[in-house]
Amino acid sequence: MKKVAIIGASGYSGEELVRLLLAHPQAELTAVTSRQYAGQTVGQIFPKFANHPRAQSLRFTEPKAELLAKAAEIVFLALPHGVAAEFAVPLLQLGCQVIDLSADFRVKDAAVYKEFYAHDHPAPELLLQSVYGLPELYRSQIKNASLIASPGCYPTSILLPIIPLLKTGLIKPAGIIADALTGVSGAGRKAELDYLFVECNESVRPYGIPKHRHLSEIEQELSLAAGEAVTIQFTPHLIPINRGILATLYLAPVKHFDASGVEELAQKISGCYQQAYGKEPFVRLLEGKALPDTKNVEGTNVIEIAWRLDPRTGRLVVMSAEDNLVKGASGQAVQSMNILCGFPETAGLL
Amino acid sequence: MKKVAIIGASGYSGEELVRLLLAHPQAELTAVTSRQYAGQTVGQIFPKFANHPRAQSLRFTEPKAELLAKAAEIVFLALPHGVAAEFAVPLLQLGCQVIDLSADFRVKDAAVYKEFYAHDHPAPELLLQSVYGLPELYRSQIKNASLIASPGCYPTSILLPIIPLLKTGLIKPAGIIADALTGVSGAGRKAELDYLFVECNESVRPYGIPKHRHLSEIEQELSLAAGEAVTIQFTPHLIPINRGILATLYLAPVKHFDASGVEELAQKISGCYQQAYGKEPFVRLLEGKALPDTKNVEGTNVIEIAWRLDPRTGRLVVMSAEDNLVKGASGQAVQSMNILCGFPETAGLL
Amino acid sequence: MKKVAIIGASGYSGEELVRLLLAHPQAELTAVTSRQYAGQTVGQIFPKFANHPRAQSLRFTEPKAELLAKAAEIVFLALPHGVAAEFAVPLLQLGCQVIDLSADFRVKDAAVYKEFYAHDHPAPELLLQSVYGLPELYRSQIKNASLIASPGCYPTSILLPIIPLLKTGLIKPAGIIADALTGVSGAGRKAELDYLFVECNESVRPYGIPKHRHLSEIEQELSLAAGEAVTIQFTPHLIPINRGILATLYLAPVKHFDASGVEELAQKISGCYQQAYGKEPFVRLLEGKALPDTKNVEGTNVIEIAWRLDPRTGRLVVMSAEDNLVKGASGQAVQSMNILCGFPETAGLL
Amino acid sequence: MKKVAIIGASGYSGEELVRLLLAHPQAELTAVTSRQYAGQTVGQIFPKFANHPRAQSLRFTEPKAELLAKAAEIVFLALPHGVAAEFAVPLLQLGCQVIDLSADFRVKDAAVYKEFYAHDHPAPELLLQSVYGLPELYRSQIKNASLIASPGCYPTSILLPIIPLLKTGLIKPAGIIADALTGVSGAGRKAELDYLFVECNESVRPYGIPKHRHLSEIEQELSLAAGEAVTIQFTPHLIPINRGILATLYLAPVKHFDASGVEELAQKISGCYQQAYGKEPFVRLLEGKALPDTKNVEGTNVIEIAWRLDPRTGRLVVMSAEDNLVKGASGQAVQSMNILCGFPETAGLL
Repeated sequence: MKKVAIIGASGYSGEELVRLLLAHPQAELTAVTSRQYAGQTVGQIFPKFANHPRAQSLRFTEPKAELLAKAAEIVFLALPHGVAAEFAVPLLQLGCQVIDLSADFRVKDAAVYKEFYAHDHPAPELLLQSVYGLPELYRSQIKNASLIASPGCYPTSILLPIIPLLKTGLIKPAGIIADALTGVSGAGRKAELDYLFVECNESVRPYGIPKHRHLSEIEQELSLAAGEAVTIQFTPHLIPINRGILATLYLAPVKHFDASGVEELAQKISGCYQQAYGKEPFVRLLEGKALPDTKNVEGTNVIEIAWRLDPRTGRLVVMSAEDNLVKGASGQAVQSMNILCGFPETAGLL
Repeated sequence: MKKVAIIGASGYSGEELVRLLLAHPQAELTAVTSRQYAGQTVGQIFPKFANHPRAQSLRFTEPKAELLAKAAEIVFLALPHGVAAEFAVPLLQLGCQVIDLSADFRVKDAAVYKEFYAHDHPAPELLLQSVYGLPELYRSQIKNASLIASPGCYPTSILLPIIPLLKTGLIKPAGIIADALTGVSGAGRKAELDYLFVECNESVRPYGIPKHRHLSEIEQELSLAAGEAVTIQFTPHLIPINRGILATLYLAPVKHFDASGVEELAQKISGCYQQAYGKEPFVRLLEGKALPDTKNVEGTNVIEIAWRLDPRTGRLVVMSAEDNLVKGASGQAVQSMNILCGFPETAGLL
Repeated sequence: MKKVAIIGASGYSGEELVRLLLAHPQAELTAVTSRQYAGQTVGQIFPKFANHPRAQSLRFTEPKAELLAKAAEIVFLALPHGVAAEFAVPLLQLGCQVIDLSADFRVKDAAVYKEFYAHDHPAPELLLQSVYGLPELYRSQIKNASLIASPGCYPTSILLPIIPLLKTGLIKPAGIIADALTGVSGAGRKAELDYLFVECNESVRPYGIPKHRHLSEIEQELSLAAGEAVTIQFTPHLIPINRGILATLYLAPVKHFDASGVEELAQKISGCYQQAYGKEPFVRLLEGKALPDTKNVEGTNVIEIAWRLDPRTGRLVVMSAEDNLVKGASGQAVQSMNILCGFPETAGLL
Repeated sequence: MKKVAIIGASGYSGEELVRLLLAHPQAELTAVTSRQYAGQTVGQIFPKFANHPRAQSLRFTEPKAELLAKAAEIVFLALPHGVAAEFAVPLLQLGCQVIDLSADFRVKDAAVYKEFYAHDHPAPELLLQSVYGLPELYRSQIKNASLIASPGCYPTSILLPIIPLLKTGLIKPAGIIADALTGVSGAGRKAELDYLFVECNESVRPYGIPKHRHLSEIEQELSLAAGEAVTIQFTPHLIPINRGILATLYLAPVKHFDASGVEELAQKISGCYQQAYGKEPFVRLLEGKALPDTKNVEGTNVIEIAWRLDPRTGRLVVMSAEDNLVKGASGQAVQSMNILCGFPETAGLL
């Protein structure tokens, strides 16, 4: 059993990490921290886990790097950006492997980080060391990483469907549009009026446009895949579901096509996705008339992908669905942990 | 008091028409039809109106054109496409004015109708006579119409934001994308598994792509505004709210702009919208940081519009919100009735 | 036009008052206060009213009794308990009529107030002067009141169904149970974790048992109706809807009955309710198989009541549904205003 | 690996059984039937399981007892009442063990069955053979059963909290009231207007009163526990959540108590529950201020129980929460299977 700890376990991602790690067959959750809940057991704060023996005995503590490094080999950071880096530095020095769910180590360029997050990067020297924790893309690097920057929920839902198409040159890198819908847990467990039940129920609204923070990591990874600078249009919306992201991606195939050319292009796209994800345990390529639906991925580490060619407009529309707290956050982090530790990649995730 | 009737009053649009017409200061609802509910009072079928005296006495009847023509001067058709035309023909012959909420008379070209609705148009001779009932665009024609084809919910949410920009030549007619989200009442009151609470709650999913029926009227009206054939990309999604449509529109300004040119272009767009809608009682142009939110238009005949220029991508993103059953259906039909009858346009709609 | 003002207009009840008073044919909203929003227009804070001309010009101000007394003849208090009394005292001295939506003047006994609200009553000298603003019960006193204590949402849903039965001696005053379900707006517009979308959606939970504050006014009024001290069991639950209260009341008929006696007793109960509410514009006595449903009263000032006799248990089960923000708060306050001003009781409420 | 099959796997309980059995470490799902979906794979019909290898190969078949008896040792029936018995008879004759999720074998008295279900019992000779599958009560009988009648969702939520109190004589058998709230999945996957999203969202309503079918098994089991005939008041309500039941139970302690006697009685009740459920893996006795909440049991086989003594009324109020599809249906059935097969009782349920 690998000993693992979570710093900042009181938010929705932290809670989901607790759920996954309590049930993980090869990991032992030895420490969880929360300034607010220090001294209370996991079962007291999260009644839904109260029947688990470990949740009855494990108590939240103040976050102290030295103690955590003694308690665990792998430490998950479920903290706000800026704060996460403060813990990553000492934990790495103390020999822990760190899986960070914040944005702190996702963007490789400290200047871009500052542009999007409005403060200097707290530990720029670690940026090159960190690995972007998208297993379907960076599996081999994750295997040997000391610091994993686990991707955000929106980036996962956008990158996984687009990158294979860019890499194989099937679509143009310019003009990409990502229209995305997120459940309210994506806003975090924060006592703010905007996220009250009454303000979200029977409501749907765009927000954070046109320059959402997640653009920094999305465009970084798309640019790497395309081999050139990629700038995209990204419009997030808040919808009244607890969990889930649905992304609709508008793409332009490199090869112009009309009704007669649809089939040929469709085969290429299908082949591209099969090649990229045909054997991936957590990517579900939908077939026939099926389209992604967040309810079909709720609570799972799966991302659903479907696509349609539209001969009327010459566009390729790709759609994806994931659980923002699992494949979009904590499940993906556990998937990286499995790779890091040499466990079966699906351990604790099926 | 103008005598009015509704054929097919048992669906969600029909019910909303009943609500609006019962409360209308200058209209008297004299007949409602429903094969299923014939013989029962409006108050029995719609308990929420049961305290209204008219709802206690008015009974649903079988739909018979002769009787309706005696009972009312204006007849609303809240029927499925194909069926609506069957009633429009005799009602017009009997001298009624007809406001049709179905798609039957929206598309001017019977061939396009057949392409999108998969059957021959049932009364092609009426197509030229009918007026597309979007008051902000066709107010003067509505005034003298005998047959008004009231627009669908998606078309309203897309046409009102885009048409002024096309007419003034601020955006390119090519490459338009409309990504739209609808509440479940948009699917109608139909006993189908897909629209059960459990299938829709905690779910969001695209559907009907890439060639939704509403494209026919959307493209017809955009083409008229642009003065050339317009083909758009349209992706509807179903989200778990009762009422509301949120449309996010991706547009390309004719004039290329970067960060330095944003302000100048912004003034033009602002001026264009002010000119088009500054005095419209049911169009709310949002200012400052405000963005559309379906909860702010629920139960009202208002459409909210906001827009952002993105100097990173060179695009204009326009967003709109409306209540699909009011401005997207029954409220708009009543607005047309007000114009037709010379009532204040806001009568019964504030 | 009667000039009216609202102190504390930024919560959900305040917002609903704004909605009703903006649309009221005989009232003119001349002042609204909110410390938080002072200086901004009603349309800026509540976009859903932004198309109303008054909402575009009327600005929130700091709450100052002198200014309000100059601006309005009638002042609504939509404030927390304890705070409301502080404003009622000077406003009454300045000659205003006050309609208080808080609990401050509902309980006649200052000792009971202290027992349930845990602080001394701030203005006990006004308790006898105030009238409990339940129009169906206290219409004649409301007509001449200077200070109206408008009832809470739970009390309205419980008192209206029970009081006629107690007054006519059809049920026993002992052993009454009220099991009630409320929408989340009942918790107010407060930035607290418990009322976040994610914490309320897919959740139902009891709270505040066994001694909820509303018991004080419920038991006061039931005791007055029964002519003896009444103590009831009251269990509120929070359910994921925006608006609405559903109360299920378990009552014991004085006369024992079995299957053979059901019809006779049923006629008495039916007669009792017809006598009490047959002509009330806002009480809907359901017939046949109909049962109350919050969606049928949403946005209206109506309370629905239905009942069933159970010969198996010898009990009478009465159910009611209301919109907690309308008949349970602001609509009822406007109903009282209508009575106070000699307007038609339904003015602005249909 | 024990071979198991499900007849009627296309409803919500059937789907939940599929979920649990696909993931069960000691069971192999060898057959699933559905007339409607015969020929299609489990993954095609339930996309959420599509990544599971078994779901990709296992196809729905027509329900034929002979084939099922060859394919499986244990057969789950997830069928409507009346239909279930028709399959139980031949399956038992062919040597299968049967776990029936319908009501067909829960009520021991065929006359009571007829009274509540309005048709003759289809296989009365099996009634004595069947075991009521509530593991916390009938664990030893389940161990050797051939036919297990797995309890309904409401009965589980009511019986588990009440029976220990009745058995120890702490409460009176007379006058029990059960007020219960259910999520919409409790209505089954049926294409009926009443369960459309729009009809359930923003709605709460009682239904099926005063004589709901589940009363037959509830009163049977309460009577057995009390040693005398028990008749209860039961009021179910439909609320807009997918899953979950919240029951609020009004009980009368045998010993009269007031404020001074609360503590003594509380200790007895606490002791009673500890004795009954202190070691049960799926009963969570809440402590301190905690109250049941359906979101804390969603997707789990746990029932939460809390209680309060009210010295004002002399009553004991007990509240429980469970997932209607898990502890209220399929999870409980798997728990019985575990007992039957000698597996750890929590296998596949944690």
